[in-house]
Amino acid sequence: MKIIVDAFGGDHAPLEILKGAADAKKEYGVDIIFTGDSEKIRACASENNIDITGCEILDASQVMQMEDEPNLILKVKRDSSMGVGLDALAAGKGDAFVSAGSTAALVVGGTFIVKRIKGIKRCAIASVMPSDKGPFMLIDCGANVECKPAFLAQFAQMGSIYMGKVLGIGRPRVGLANIGVEETKGTPFVRESYALLQEERSINFIGNAEVRDIANGVADVIVADGFTGNVILKMYEGVAGMLVGNIKKMFKKNIFSMLGYLLVKGGMNEFKGKMDYKQYGGAPLLGLTAPVIKAHGSSDARAFKNAIRQAKDCCENQVVATIAAGLHTDDAAEDCM
Amino acid sequence: MKIIVDAFGGDHAPLEILKGAADAKKEYGVDIIFTGDSEKIRACASENNIDITGCEILDASQVMQMEDEPNLILKVKRDSSMGVGLDALAAGKGDAFVSAGSTAALVVGGTFIVKRIKGIKRCAIASVMPSDKGPFMLIDCGANVECKPAFLAQFAQMGSIYMGKVLGIGRPRVGLANIGVEETKGTPFVRESYALLQEERSINFIGNAEVRDIANGVADVIVADGFTGNVILKMYEGVAGMLVGNIKKMFKKNIFSMLGYLLVKGGMNEFKGKMDYKQYGGAPLLGLTAPVIKAHGSSDARAFKNAIRQAKDCCENQVVATIAAGLHTDDAAEDCM
Repeated sequence: MKIIVDAFGGDHAPLEILKGAADAKKEYGVDIIFTGDSEKIRACASENNIDITGCEILDASQVMQMEDEPNLILKVKRDSSMGVGLDALAAGKGDAFVSAGSTAALVVGGTFIVKRIKGIKRCAIASVMPSDKGPFMLIDCGANVECKPAFLAQFAQMGSIYMGKVLGIGRPRVGLANIGVEETKGTPFVRESYALLQEERSINFIGNAEVRDIANGVADVIVADGFTGNVILKMYEGVAGMLVGNIKKMFKKNIFSMLGYLLVKGGMNEFKGKMDYKQYGGAPLLGLTAPVIKAHGSSDARAFKNAIRQAKDCCENQVVATIAAGLHTDDAAEDCM
Repeated sequence: MKIIVDAFGGDHAPLEILKGAADAKKEYGVDIIFTGDSEKIRACASENNIDITGCEILDASQVMQMEDEPNLILKVKRDSSMGVGLDALAAGKGDAFVSAGSTAALVVGGTFIVKRIKGIKRCAIASVMPSDKGPFMLIDCGANVECKPAFLAQFAQMGSIYMGKVLGIGRPRVGLANIGVEETKGTPFVRESYALLQEERSINFIGNAEVRDIANGVADVIVADGFTGNVILKMYEGVAGMLVGNIKKMFKKNIFSMLGYLLVKGGMNEFKGKMDYKQYGGAPLLGLTAPVIKAHGSSDARAFKNAIRQAKDCCENQVVATIAAGLHTDDAAEDCM
């Protein structure tokens, strides 16, 4: 299996990307194709003793920057590490693509270079996140700030397939993110989405997922429009970050509190393990004709390695083929981007 | 000053309500008018040695239940503790009304019994919440799931007035809840709201408040439509609750972890104090002709006492009059509910 890796995406590229990819090659037995400036890749690998023997490199003269207009990926910056990677994936040179670069550019590039599965109205960013009761998927996390209810019905199907195939959850519980459990709650858009999800036989729809209960693991797949999904994702990250920062400060306060930390270290590590989003890899872009994984921008080697494992899992479990086979395509023609 | 108190709202009514009100009377020197079944109020007070001497009671034969259709407050359940309280406030029998009962019913009752200030398009639920850098106001927290940009401009003005007058914050920084800081981010609704807020001279608009930074205290007033605001509020509560629950579990694990807790107790209490939402009281309904405070449904005596202090602060600082004086009323006629 060949995984194409954007060597110049994310805050710690190329060093952590190369490290993570080399580890993944060793650990999971995948082949790696790097995209990016080949001289810089080789120099970084040799300076840091990273073994990239046997890894192919597809040269790319540019890098998509975080502040770049996402559409640049299609023409002006097509020769970027991300653009070259997406082109290679579309041409079948590899089985999946992993990048820690700009999410928006990856969505645009994925949609127009790799292209959507026939019948898929929109591709979605699907984050696997920790909850009190294990991982859940939040879909869409921000690819589509404006949605139609029919998009959400497809997000629910794609999310269910992923959680079933990749995480092995039987009949994943699908909940619609809403401000209450009653079906009368929310905006007209949310209520219409509810009605559509309820009709969808292929999923295990459990109704509205009260937002307050999401972190407690109320559902395996949380469906939302990209604006709401992004708000949920960022509130989760923001509140958790703030609280954890305060807890750390509390333990570092004085010699007694540091001793206190030693006494709870075991439980703390267990808790950290449960909440460690890096273990799940990145966020798959679901709905494309080949697996594309968005690794977190702040990915270190371990997080990036896990994103590659996730790409491998997507391939092995035929997530794309299952989505393509399972979707209702009777209304494929309408609503194309 | 006379504060009207719904003695039968919330999970711990009437006991905690009576206790909190009696404490507020003593501590803040306010007069209390209870609404609800007078026999039950007197019996509960005497059984629990709560001194309600000098408190007036307005009899009410009914109670608005959480599952009641909010509109019932207007006719079928007008003789409820909440309905009688709102009628008493509208008739000028008291200066403010505090209830821990159904938020939706309070919004409907507030709007149609107490009524909106002339020129106000919608009243809003405005929660004062803790952040890493002190309290901030989130407005609207759910009164209006669908909004027009003009509503948000008024929410921003009302929130600024409250934070300035009641919490003494000079030129409160107003941020629009959004999924990025750039003004091109978000839905068309959010972008239109941005443009309108930018034109609003009476507020200190600092642009988009990236949702990830809200818990860090990025602004003093966070403006959002009621759906998004409610998602923010509930993600905050849900994530904080889940994390704190896990931290507690960690400390209770064994004898060493319990000892560890003792060593960090000081820092823990400091942190708890910072994050204690009960200190801020409840959520004012802004935009009505008299102060109405929604206390948290789970309010204990202390939280309810603080909600009464908040009502007193609203009166003393003339929040209603300031809102009425400060608003642009040229478009008062349009968009009435």
